[in-house]
Amino acid sequence: MLGWRVDFRTDPGRGPRPGAAAMNAPLPSHVLPEALRRTASPALLERLKARFGERCSTALAVRQQHGRDESPLDAPPPDAVVWCESNEDVADAVRLAADEAVPVIPFGVGSSLEGHLLAVQGGISLDLSRMNRVLAVQPEDLTVTVQAGVTRKQLNDEIRHTGLFFPIDPGADASLGGMSATRASGTNAVRYGTMRENVLGLTVVTASGEVLHTGTRARKSSAGYDLTRLMVGSEGTLGVITEVTLRLYPQPEAVSAATCSFPSIDAAVRTTIEVIQLGVPIARCELLDANAVRAVNRHDRLALKEAPMLLMEFHGSPAGVAEQAATVQAVAAEHGGEGFEWATTTEERTRLWTARHHAYFSALQSRPGCRCVTTDTCVPISRLAQCIDESVAEVEAAGLPYFIVGHVGDGNFHLGYLIDPAIPAEREQAEALNQRLVERAIRLDGTCTGEHGIGLHKMDFLVTEAGAGAVALMRSVKQALDPKNIMNPGKIFTL
Amino acid sequence: MLGWRVDFRTDPGRGPRPGAAAMNAPLPSHVLPEALRRTASPALLERLKARFGERCSTALAVRQQHGRDESPLDAPPPDAVVWCESNEDVADAVRLAADEAVPVIPFGVGSSLEGHLLAVQGGISLDLSRMNRVLAVQPEDLTVTVQAGVTRKQLNDEIRHTGLFFPIDPGADASLGGMSATRASGTNAVRYGTMRENVLGLTVVTASGEVLHTGTRARKSSAGYDLTRLMVGSEGTLGVITEVTLRLYPQPEAVSAATCSFPSIDAAVRTTIEVIQLGVPIARCELLDANAVRAVNRHDRLALKEAPMLLMEFHGSPAGVAEQAATVQAVAAEHGGEGFEWATTTEERTRLWTARHHAYFSALQSRPGCRCVTTDTCVPISRLAQCIDESVAEVEAAGLPYFIVGHVGDGNFHLGYLIDPAIPAEREQAEALNQRLVERAIRLDGTCTGEHGIGLHKMDFLVTEAGAGAVALMRSVKQALDPKNIMNPGKIFTL
Repeated sequence: MLGWRVDFRTDPGRGPRPGAAAMNAPLPSHVLPEALRRTASPALLERLKARFGERCSTALAVRQQHGRDESPLDAPPPDAVVWCESNEDVADAVRLAADEAVPVIPFGVGSSLEGHLLAVQGGISLDLSRMNRVLAVQPEDLTVTVQAGVTRKQLNDEIRHTGLFFPIDPGADASLGGMSATRASGTNAVRYGTMRENVLGLTVVTASGEVLHTGTRARKSSAGYDLTRLMVGSEGTLGVITEVTLRLYPQPEAVSAATCSFPSIDAAVRTTIEVIQLGVPIARCELLDANAVRAVNRHDRLALKEAPMLLMEFHGSPAGVAEQAATVQAVAAEHGGEGFEWATTTEERTRLWTARHHAYFSALQSRPGCRCVTTDTCVPISRLAQCIDESVAEVEAAGLPYFIVGHVGDGNFHLGYLIDPAIPAEREQAEALNQRLVERAIRLDGTCTGEHGIGLHKMDFLVTEAGAGAVALMRSVKQALDPKNIMNPGKIFTL
Repeated sequence: MLGWRVDFRTDPGRGPRPGAAAMNAPLPSHVLPEALRRTASPALLERLKARFGERCSTALAVRQQHGRDESPLDAPPPDAVVWCESNEDVADAVRLAADEAVPVIPFGVGSSLEGHLLAVQGGISLDLSRMNRVLAVQPEDLTVTVQAGVTRKQLNDEIRHTGLFFPIDPGADASLGGMSATRASGTNAVRYGTMRENVLGLTVVTASGEVLHTGTRARKSSAGYDLTRLMVGSEGTLGVITEVTLRLYPQPEAVSAATCSFPSIDAAVRTTIEVIQLGVPIARCELLDANAVRAVNRHDRLALKEAPMLLMEFHGSPAGVAEQAATVQAVAAEHGGEGFEWATTTEERTRLWTARHHAYFSALQSRPGCRCVTTDTCVPISRLAQCIDESVAEVEAAGLPYFIVGHVGDGNFHLGYLIDPAIPAEREQAEALNQRLVERAIRLDGTCTGEHGIGLHKMDFLVTEAGAGAVALMRSVKQALDPKNIMNPGKIFTL
């Protein structure tokens, strides 16, 4: 899957991601050969420039920046980038592209881990970052409607005064459109659910350039097919999400966070399993292995004990929080947990959670120049200890640097293999380990991806997990809604 | 929409629902004329009998019983009924029907309120009530897999010993397949969500007779299109749901239920709004108007004060339950709530909630021979008081008997118009009131159906709510997955 067949030195319009693998290497299997790419014609580029002016760019640097993401994958950049500022902008761009059956690829902040943003078949990148307005807050209904480019942190900043918050927090400060498109979650999902549960409605531009609305602001509905949830997690392949209506939650009266170290990953995971089975409404329950703790200590100047750790948070009334914490502390003690430490002030809590959110980037920095192959399996909670234990044994035996962070309350964890991109054998090793981990998770009734999506990287795993028949059904839906296959083609599955 | 164009006296194979409107009246608009119905041929009936033996019936009484539901709608009965006992049975029946492009209509317990079970285009009723096994309980993961014919009460009886329960409870003891197909909810949804949030995976027989599995037992997943949620709420129009994997919850350590009477519906609703906005994790919050209280008093021999009432339940630790209840009691007092009475024993609680679940049937009995036109709007919580107040004013002005029960914590309520089926003007009046109520709910950012589904009755409302473009997109999905239009055709929309 590595490298390039295209000679970029003779094609100044194409360039590899800076720091990526060597040039002139074979074209990655997910990238269509030049002859099959649906490249925008000069006439289309002219029409886009006539419509969008300065907001349409074909500059190489701009295209390169929009043709990559946080995945370790590479592809030639898109043919142009269009900054959209309204639903009508998106609709017009899609219609122009549709005329030539040229792909369109929505772009938020570029934090995908699975290659969602790569122009593997050519096409136009639609940058939605300027669609960054909070359109309406209804505190009395605990709902908000935002444009797709609003990021999760921006949203929480803008609604803080209402006493409400939006809990879903992937590692990056991702856009809410991107989070919807990948069915993202994060550290709070164990209590508040994922984007699946928290998106009430969407505005979507379809493959024909029509602006549609799905869902309502009502908490529940049985009105026809659940188009909202069909779009959530569709990774831009069925339409461009331009607006999102979300559920909000009252900021809890009391919040307390705690860390607890364990003699082994297994002990930390078994504590988690028991807490979930007891029905404790824990708000966050995150695992960091010793490698991840070491990385965040260095990056965020913390002094956490460099051993497997649970980082937990409790939300509720003061009495409720105290009660939850006491239960968890008792369970942890039974599993050898020690040094149950409290972060009582907002500042301490923020520092800890910021460190947790930095874990991925901290770990990257622990091996200079490395890239990360990230796994994202999620299994039923009772299978979690087995799934992690066996996977750790394998990576230890392989001798590859790694770290683990996990939303273990959900049964979801990320094993990050830190590879040197200049050593193909390391990537192959990481991919082989990931493959065994995914097969294990599926055997244990789990999924190959808890929150990152399929993208380019997990298409084969999707077939293993869902079966060829279910994937064929997905393809039928795609073909019905996007007959020209222009909406972020080549992601989730190929046609 | 009333009555019949077919003369049943000359066609013993067709008969109206017992007690239904007059014969020889016009054919309801949702029913295809005889010439267009896709009636099973004698050859198909022979093949079905050869495959299913005694489990295939063409007896009139059997067909009539399967050709109606709890809606006030009527249609000629299906051409045959097949009792399926396995996925393979369903697949074989679908394949045989598909050969002749004859419709198949899944049947659970027959408790639909929206005409889902009516054979409006002819076809075969697939009775799944014998698919009633709990296939696997995984208490350690809080999951269970059941066949589609298992009812919610049966499930809770069979898993009681595990210390877990399944919270979704529509009024009827519905089948879990039917509850999935209509995206049902009930009294616990305010805390535990609806079928949308609680179905983890499905087994589905597609229109081509293929047996597919969607989802996994993992709590979350980003693996491709959310086929599970596409099927949940699809009302049998995309496939036959044969198995359901569900989330379970620990039985709460402490449970307490309370009733509280209010000087007006408005006061009760305003109490609810404030409780939700405060973030109290109330487990149930049900409104009964004075008419509904009167009906359940009579039916269940209770002595509740015949005034608007909230019936609430709190789940949690003993301290947590006490804290929630104290908060709610204080809010209720501010709105004139009085007689806050506790049901402390399991028996008292069960009696109250059984009465609540009997409200629909109790109200039906309050006007002998009547049928009920039931509304199902759901609005954002802040709009609920306005939506109910204006709708009550209208029905009071119209002079039609009615009652209200509502899952008001979700913004969902049912106004039941009790009509004499022999007086067409009453049905017309009820339909006109319903229409105004639905339009009001949609204007208030709500939905025409919170939990009953679209069925036959709300197809026009769906277009008003979702827009013609979104409904066209639903149709595209339907046509892609069911090209012969054999899966419960004529429901949700017509093609």
